[in-house]
Amino acid sequence: MQKTNVTIAPSIMSSDLLNLERSVRDIEKEGIDTLHIDIIDGSFSPSMPLGIDTVKQLRKITNIDFDVHLMGNDNEFLIQEMINIGVEQISFHLETSIHVDRYVNLIRNSGAKVGVALTPSTPLTSLEYILPQCDTVLLMLINPGFATDKNEKQIPYAVQKISDLKKLIEEKGLNTRIEVDGRVSLESIPDLVGAGADILVAGSTSLFIKGRSLGENKIIMEEKISEGLSKREALK
Amino acid sequence: MQKTNVTIAPSIMSSDLLNLERSVRDIEKEGIDTLHIDIIDGSFSPSMPLGIDTVKQLRKITNIDFDVHLMGNDNEFLIQEMINIGVEQISFHLETSIHVDRYVNLIRNSGAKVGVALTPSTPLTSLEYILPQCDTVLLMLINPGFATDKNEKQIPYAVQKISDLKKLIEEKGLNTRIEVDGRVSLESIPDLVGAGADILVAGSTSLFIKGRSLGENKIIMEEKISEGLSKREALK
Amino acid sequence: MQKTNVTIAPSIMSSDLLNLERSVRDIEKEGIDTLHIDIIDGSFSPSMPLGIDTVKQLRKITNIDFDVHLMGNDNEFLIQEMINIGVEQISFHLETSIHVDRYVNLIRNSGAKVGVALTPSTPLTSLEYILPQCDTVLLMLINPGFATDKNEKQIPYAVQKISDLKKLIEEKGLNTRIEVDGRVSLESIPDLVGAGADILVAGSTSLFIKGRSLGENKIIMEEKISEGLSKREALK
Amino acid sequence: MQKTNVTIAPSIMSSDLLNLERSVRDIEKEGIDTLHIDIIDGSFSPSMPLGIDTVKQLRKITNIDFDVHLMGNDNEFLIQEMINIGVEQISFHLETSIHVDRYVNLIRNSGAKVGVALTPSTPLTSLEYILPQCDTVLLMLINPGFATDKNEKQIPYAVQKISDLKKLIEEKGLNTRIEVDGRVSLESIPDLVGAGADILVAGSTSLFIKGRSLGENKIIMEEKISEGLSKREALK
Amino acid sequence: MQKTNVTIAPSIMSSDLLNLERSVRDIEKEGIDTLHIDIIDGSFSPSMPLGIDTVKQLRKITNIDFDVHLMGNDNEFLIQEMINIGVEQISFHLETSIHVDRYVNLIRNSGAKVGVALTPSTPLTSLEYILPQCDTVLLMLINPGFATDKNEKQIPYAVQKISDLKKLIEEKGLNTRIEVDGRVSLESIPDLVGAGADILVAGSTSLFIKGRSLGENKIIMEEKISEGLSKREALK
Amino acid sequence: MQKTNVTIAPSIMSSDLLNLERSVRDIEKEGIDTLHIDIIDGSFSPSMPLGIDTVKQLRKITNIDFDVHLMGNDNEFLIQEMINIGVEQISFHLETSIHVDRYVNLIRNSGAKVGVALTPSTPLTSLEYILPQCDTVLLMLINPGFATDKNEKQIPYAVQKISDLKKLIEEKGLNTRIEVDGRVSLESIPDLVGAGADILVAGSTSLFIKGRSLGENKIIMEEKISEGLSKREALK
Repeated sequence: MQKTNVTIAPSIMSSDLLNLERSVRDIEKEGIDTLHIDIIDGSFSPSMPLGIDTVKQLRKITNIDFDVHLMGNDNEFLIQEMINIGVEQISFHLETSIHVDRYVNLIRNSGAKVGVALTPSTPLTSLEYILPQCDTVLLMLINPGFATDKNEKQIPYAVQKISDLKKLIEEKGLNTRIEVDGRVSLESIPDLVGAGADILVAGSTSLFIKGRSLGENKIIMEEKISEGLSKREALK
Repeated sequence: MQKTNVTIAPSIMSSDLLNLERSVRDIEKEGIDTLHIDIIDGSFSPSMPLGIDTVKQLRKITNIDFDVHLMGNDNEFLIQEMINIGVEQISFHLETSIHVDRYVNLIRNSGAKVGVALTPSTPLTSLEYILPQCDTVLLMLINPGFATDKNEKQIPYAVQKISDLKKLIEEKGLNTRIEVDGRVSLESIPDLVGAGADILVAGSTSLFIKGRSLGENKIIMEEKISEGLSKREALK
Repeated sequence: MQKTNVTIAPSIMSSDLLNLERSVRDIEKEGIDTLHIDIIDGSFSPSMPLGIDTVKQLRKITNIDFDVHLMGNDNEFLIQEMINIGVEQISFHLETSIHVDRYVNLIRNSGAKVGVALTPSTPLTSLEYILPQCDTVLLMLINPGFATDKNEKQIPYAVQKISDLKKLIEEKGLNTRIEVDGRVSLESIPDLVGAGADILVAGSTSLFIKGRSLGENKIIMEEKISEGLSKREALK
Repeated sequence: MQKTNVTIAPSIMSSDLLNLERSVRDIEKEGIDTLHIDIIDGSFSPSMPLGIDTVKQLRKITNIDFDVHLMGNDNEFLIQEMINIGVEQISFHLETSIHVDRYVNLIRNSGAKVGVALTPSTPLTSLEYILPQCDTVLLMLINPGFATDKNEKQIPYAVQKISDLKKLIEEKGLNTRIEVDGRVSLESIPDLVGAGADILVAGSTSLFIKGRSLGENKIIMEEKISEGLSKREALK
Repeated sequence: MQKTNVTIAPSIMSSDLLNLERSVRDIEKEGIDTLHIDIIDGSFSPSMPLGIDTVKQLRKITNIDFDVHLMGNDNEFLIQEMINIGVEQISFHLETSIHVDRYVNLIRNSGAKVGVALTPSTPLTSLEYILPQCDTVLLMLINPGFATDKNEKQIPYAVQKISDLKKLIEEKGLNTRIEVDGRVSLESIPDLVGAGADILVAGSTSLFIKGRSLGENKIIMEEKISEGLSKREALK
Repeated sequence: MQKTNVTIAPSIMSSDLLNLERSVRDIEKEGIDTLHIDIIDGSFSPSMPLGIDTVKQLRKITNIDFDVHLMGNDNEFLIQEMINIGVEQISFHLETSIHVDRYVNLIRNSGAKVGVALTPSTPLTSLEYILPQCDTVLLMLINPGFATDKNEKQIPYAVQKISDLKKLIEEKGLNTRIEVDGRVSLESIPDLVGAGADILVAGSTSLFIKGRSLGENKIIMEEKISEGLSKREALK
């Protein structure tokens, strides 16, 4: 199978929260180099999945890349906490940020990669001046913080939004990566990757599908990614 | 007179709040099928015109369509209250919503029509991904929640904004209806309708002009609407 | 029957919200001189029963005393609105007020009577310096803003709290009246009045009990009040 | 050694967050029946130690009593989450609660025990009416949410406050238990228990002292508790 | 004239804000050793009299004691700013503080004196555990942040509240100083000092009375203070 | 030297806050007709440089144009305060405003000029309908409220954003002026003015450069402005 440059970022929320050390080792064993971590403050969305102290302890036992998605109202506090822990990428939401450019600089100066996250409905015009300052744009394909709500389905305009962003990035001659999060599934991966997705947040509908091992799921995901990359090639 | 497909939506705030049952009957008698209801929480704007319990009691006595315009900071709470009451359309403001797509789905799944409301200055780019998910866009032509402020005049860019939205809707091949609210008057109706307005929130400067009956005002409004539709036709 | 100086304050929320003019006339016909009005902003409690504009319109048709109970987070705004309308008593909650003394003065200077409202759990020590500045203390006997929640029962320490407040008022040699609100019923009136309640907010479990007219219910209430006053006398 | 009725409640924050299943088994093995869980929202205090989903997963593997201490601004949300999970005791802070009595009832009706938590400086007069409705009062002996701040020392008035509360409970003839949290150490236990503490939140300065096993630390704690109980007896 | 131990603390707001260096020199020339500085954030009260940068620049030119009264919603931020500047006393309001004990420690550890400020209506029971940790209690005799409102009069219970606090301090055997702020005038000083006031915030109705020099006003103030101290002596 | 129509607006924060009267006289002496005043509430950004009362007192001694930049969360309050003082231009941030059109009208009706301020990352699409209603757009070239943070550098996209805005203004046939604020320096002025900047907020890196007098710095600034205007001419 063709080597891909699409990143699989397993969501910590889909792993075994009571045995995180083992979960991380399992992920590492598969050669996966990124762990996606959701931090929600209960006010941005009515959800508070993971504690900051858990991230702190995780940092001590693994060098896997931490890809943190902040969903909070006090971004300055949360960004600073993540910087103190030492993570590899921090994405924060434009919708709750006044000092967007400041947060970008805080993250950049810490040595981490900068991501800005957008809720499904947020237009790409909001990226007008900040896109060239970012490493990653995290497009939410469900409403952020509602992953456990069964009524939440992947937005029907997912592929369209990824395509639009891909086009914008290319027009500006940038290398910004597109990360997608929310019901990323074996069925949807070819289209999402085809449209331009570079980082796939992987949960219970892909890497953690029950009945198969992590390794088996990963192989299928990679096939779907290949399929997507071929589509992308064809679209050029 | 030519039959129009423009909806007259009388504002409950212009009716007799102390005799609402009679007011609703008067409206129904004129063959009007929609009642516009403003819910403001005193924090979005310094105004709290109507109670939720009043809407609840109204629902029990009439089948007229309730077209609810929410102006609040806790949209999830207010939307849920309206869903519980059972109303026909719920519009909420983009400016106070983080989880826009979620609110759209909540309303849609309840069987009600979905409206998004924009303050005068909010750009149409904010509709980029959400427009196709909506039945209605409610354009505020005065600052929302300040209807009783005599200094509030209809914005000079009302017709321009309606035209721009109409064009956007047509470009995307959608059937979204344009609702307008704020000093909609006999004088302005032809231009507003000409530019593309489909639903007119009617208050003291149109349907409730004193000195004439509701029925008489309605006939004049319909003439003005016809005039507007002719303008619209001419503009094509 | 013995004439009492206990006030019956019918709650507007228990009347017919769609025919308020008639409701007020019915109340006036019974010689009742006070109307209790709850204003909630949806944020203090998840409820917004009545609009400010309704109070405004009511003021134009009746001289009955308006006894307003504010449940909001922006007391300065709500107090000012009530002053502008011209009401006879304004009670606001200590729990959401920083500038308690200021609100007391605002109300006093407007010519209205001053009430401070306490949630069930708020201790009477909070009244230490403000009690002599008030005309009324409104003791909530259920959690304020949750009247429509069937699980809300009158607090078991209602009589105790009224007694404690009565004792405090007498120790300080004041004439402050004690108002009680929350499931005030025919069964509980004798004990509440016996303990010192001077104003009874009357709703569906007293003045508005179905199957009897307003007048009939009022006569029974007055008997219960008499019973309570006898108890009070006996306790001295 | 004399059997005591003082509860040792190990703090989950002092256990191994990356191997929680094993940590809980270790605690159970020592015959400890209570696990103390801190939930902080990052806004009450600048800290968010633990996620709600972690508590949810823990519930599935153990029947140990969950003693949850909520430190948040939206108590209604957090209480409801804990009720849904099914925990044995929920303590919330009076300082961030308007509807205290309501929260007490919500918790009580769910079958859980009710605790109210007080910051160090909050006076006991705040308990005037709510004390008889509670199973437990949780006295914070450091500022809540700042446990990882090295400058936080146990308040010098810890013993005094416990004594005062103990006296109040006895005067009212109640069985309310006194829980203490914050730098509870082998050195301070005799005095804290002597003054009336019934539940000890145990962390790195008692049950989790390094260099000794959990079991060894527990034995020493029990000796200190015995010492405290003798003191208490002597004070009668 | 008898030497007094009552401090006159001129309010910076009554001095010439456009010539602060000269104002401070004038105050120093009179042998006054304390400058009272009000910091309000516009949200606690609708007022923002003075900037933090002004305090910062003032610090560079004078060694006079800065007695800062914070009226804000984010006490942790404001306290830290004042600590960074290096001031001699910081008072913050109990009414906007959850972590009271923490703020006390922050201030104490910085080397500054600790004051807690109370609005007129706040009861002294709120001081139950924190009083012994404070150097000063600042009693507001008008509503804090409304000094420029002509309707604000000194509370009628000023003397009573000072006496009550004085008694409490003596009962506990403490040396806490009582600071009073709000329309402290030549007429009221004898009674305020007589009741126990130790620090007088001096503005336009005492030290800055027009028509007399600062020095002349100071002499009269000192006479009034002497009068007050004699009263206090007589009361023992 | 060629007369320019570019305004130099010295920032009050760079002047001597302890001798403001003299500072203003120095500025007036140089023939400068505008004073830039930053009002921050400590919550928009962690900074509160200047008090409202200082502006009030300044107004009494000078007729120089006050160009006020509001950085606050309660724009309605701050705008009203500035209107009461009587200033010549008020700029408020779009990012914290719901009722943008209302604020524009409040300012316009007071006789002052209207400015809308944008943080670095805010896209120009936000100006879609409001641009024609404004006299000035204030582009922040650093994150607003962080001027004293040494890490804050002028955004690399400053010239691009000014050019884009200039183009937009010309396309719409407007006369809107472009104001720039944040590290405006002798080095950057030619490019900023070249791209379209009409008002330069001048601080420690231009008009207040140490070692030269205000007058000397002004002359150099004017040369740089001339250079910029030549560039602008060349670009046409």
